[in-house]
Amino acid sequence: MTFSVTILGSNSALPTSERYPTAQVLNVSERFYLIDCGEGTQIQLRKYKVKFSKINQIFISHLHGDHCFGLMGLISTFSLLGRKTDLHIFAHPDLEKIVNPQLEYFCKDLQYKIIFHHINPKENKVIFDDKQLEVSTIPLKHRVPTCGFLFKEKKGLNHIKKEMVDFYQIPFKKIHGIKKGEDYITPNGEIIPNNRLTLPENKPRSYAFCSDTAYTESIVPIITNVDILYHESTFLKTDQKLANQTTHSTANQAAVIAEKAKAGKLILGHFSTRYRDFKLFKTEAEEVFKNVELAIEGGVFHIPYKNIRLAGY
Amino acid sequence: MTFSVTILGSNSALPTSERYPTAQVLNVSERFYLIDCGEGTQIQLRKYKVKFSKINQIFISHLHGDHCFGLMGLISTFSLLGRKTDLHIFAHPDLEKIVNPQLEYFCKDLQYKIIFHHINPKENKVIFDDKQLEVSTIPLKHRVPTCGFLFKEKKGLNHIKKEMVDFYQIPFKKIHGIKKGEDYITPNGEIIPNNRLTLPENKPRSYAFCSDTAYTESIVPIITNVDILYHESTFLKTDQKLANQTTHSTANQAAVIAEKAKAGKLILGHFSTRYRDFKLFKTEAEEVFKNVELAIEGGVFHIPYKNIRLAGY
Repeated sequence: MTFSVTILGSNSALPTSERYPTAQVLNVSERFYLIDCGEGTQIQLRKYKVKFSKINQIFISHLHGDHCFGLMGLISTFSLLGRKTDLHIFAHPDLEKIVNPQLEYFCKDLQYKIIFHHINPKENKVIFDDKQLEVSTIPLKHRVPTCGFLFKEKKGLNHIKKEMVDFYQIPFKKIHGIKKGEDYITPNGEIIPNNRLTLPENKPRSYAFCSDTAYTESIVPIITNVDILYHESTFLKTDQKLANQTTHSTANQAAVIAEKAKAGKLILGHFSTRYRDFKLFKTEAEEVFKNVELAIEGGVFHIPYKNIRLAGY
Repeated sequence: MTFSVTILGSNSALPTSERYPTAQVLNVSERFYLIDCGEGTQIQLRKYKVKFSKINQIFISHLHGDHCFGLMGLISTFSLLGRKTDLHIFAHPDLEKIVNPQLEYFCKDLQYKIIFHHINPKENKVIFDDKQLEVSTIPLKHRVPTCGFLFKEKKGLNHIKKEMVDFYQIPFKKIHGIKKGEDYITPNGEIIPNNRLTLPENKPRSYAFCSDTAYTESIVPIITNVDILYHESTFLKTDQKLANQTTHSTANQAAVIAEKAKAGKLILGHFSTRYRDFKLFKTEAEEVFKNVELAIEGGVFHIPYKNIRLAGY
């Protein structure tokens, strides 16, 4: 059961020949959730071999070009690839207004539906859930309405102990109920309590994406105990003034948020092109928070289960 | 005096991790003329070290996404780089209608002017000229209104012979007039005819860009004797049916056009992703026309002067 995030692009507004504008893809059991869609996202998806057909949801944090200019190209490519499945785009309502005239002009013969889900970046709210995942908005502080996204795996089933299945000769049809928490009643009427038959489920995993934003502690309660926090750090603290002016964060501020939120790991990204040595971001953040990584294109961050149990079923 | 074309992208509609949608840049004496602007053009411009500030004209052949989805990103980047110079975009009138709402939303604070020049893809007409270059439209045959562009260097000045300047002690202020064709009158009243003082100018160079199009001989008179012809070849002739259905050309057809037009060189591009081995395009075209190259990203095609003379001034 994979739960990993791949960095497709993580530069700030100005891309370079190696660094792309913001886009990430979260892989949850081989379903791919796209987060932001800067120019060239489809090229990066190919490069890192993400299956286009497994993307059904796109989450757009805000309507600056470096977070959404890749959408039209991706939508067209989906069409050329013969897509039939609905595509769900979660974004500020303005996106639909901007994209619709382009769809009408460039994609008249689209064979699949695009469904826009209007989100309010100012509120912390569940905007999507499926069998395995729940996604909620994280209000951020930027020049235009912006939110991050918290991806939380859903509570799974308990693990049944194989040796107990063998010992009690539990029939197959009873297994699912026991995984869900039921006791087992033997043919003789003996009640075997659930906690003798099972081990607790795996702890649900979580990922928080927070870009772009000025330092804001208001997000801490929402992301507390997240396994991985991606937090933008456009600047170093020597350029705090610039960060304030442009409503971005420094590596130091991102680390303070990670520390306060007791995050498992902090990924820094959205670096300004003014810096040549990105290691400085890691060094600066590590003064405050220990587990820091840099969001470089192609980087894959896996979140393993914390309490993996080997169960028979 | 450079006259060269750099391929930024030359795949057909579906980009891959290495191959970008259509964009090329023509370098005429270090002024850069952008031709089409598929997604990722700005990334390719960086990769091939084209100076953004030297691009003042963009020519868009037609309004399919793979020829223009990179425009908004490039316009935004120009703005972030502090551009103040006007940007001229030559395209079908619909482009302005599509781009304007996006400019209003994403680029409210643009510090430079964008001037749209509406072109009629159905007519062969000069749409731009400056000191060094003249650009005219080449009507093409495609599913939407489409034209190619013929770039022709302007007639230059004659070359003055250094030994004649020395012999007659021609004063500096007379040089420009003689280069333009004037005779020289010595202080004694002797008339020295221009053809004794000069050698003919360099032959003006030319480049024709023809994408996307079905086979159409109507373009031959417009591009006759062009130094380099870029002609799309989306398909091989084994897929002639597909070429016809989609109003594209085969490598064979592109070569026939090059042969009929007596082009100096043929560059093939816009290959469908269905083919793995692009050399097949070259082989097929070479059966008809000798001087064939493939448009691969990063390829630079120089057009040297045919009659270079070393002149003193």
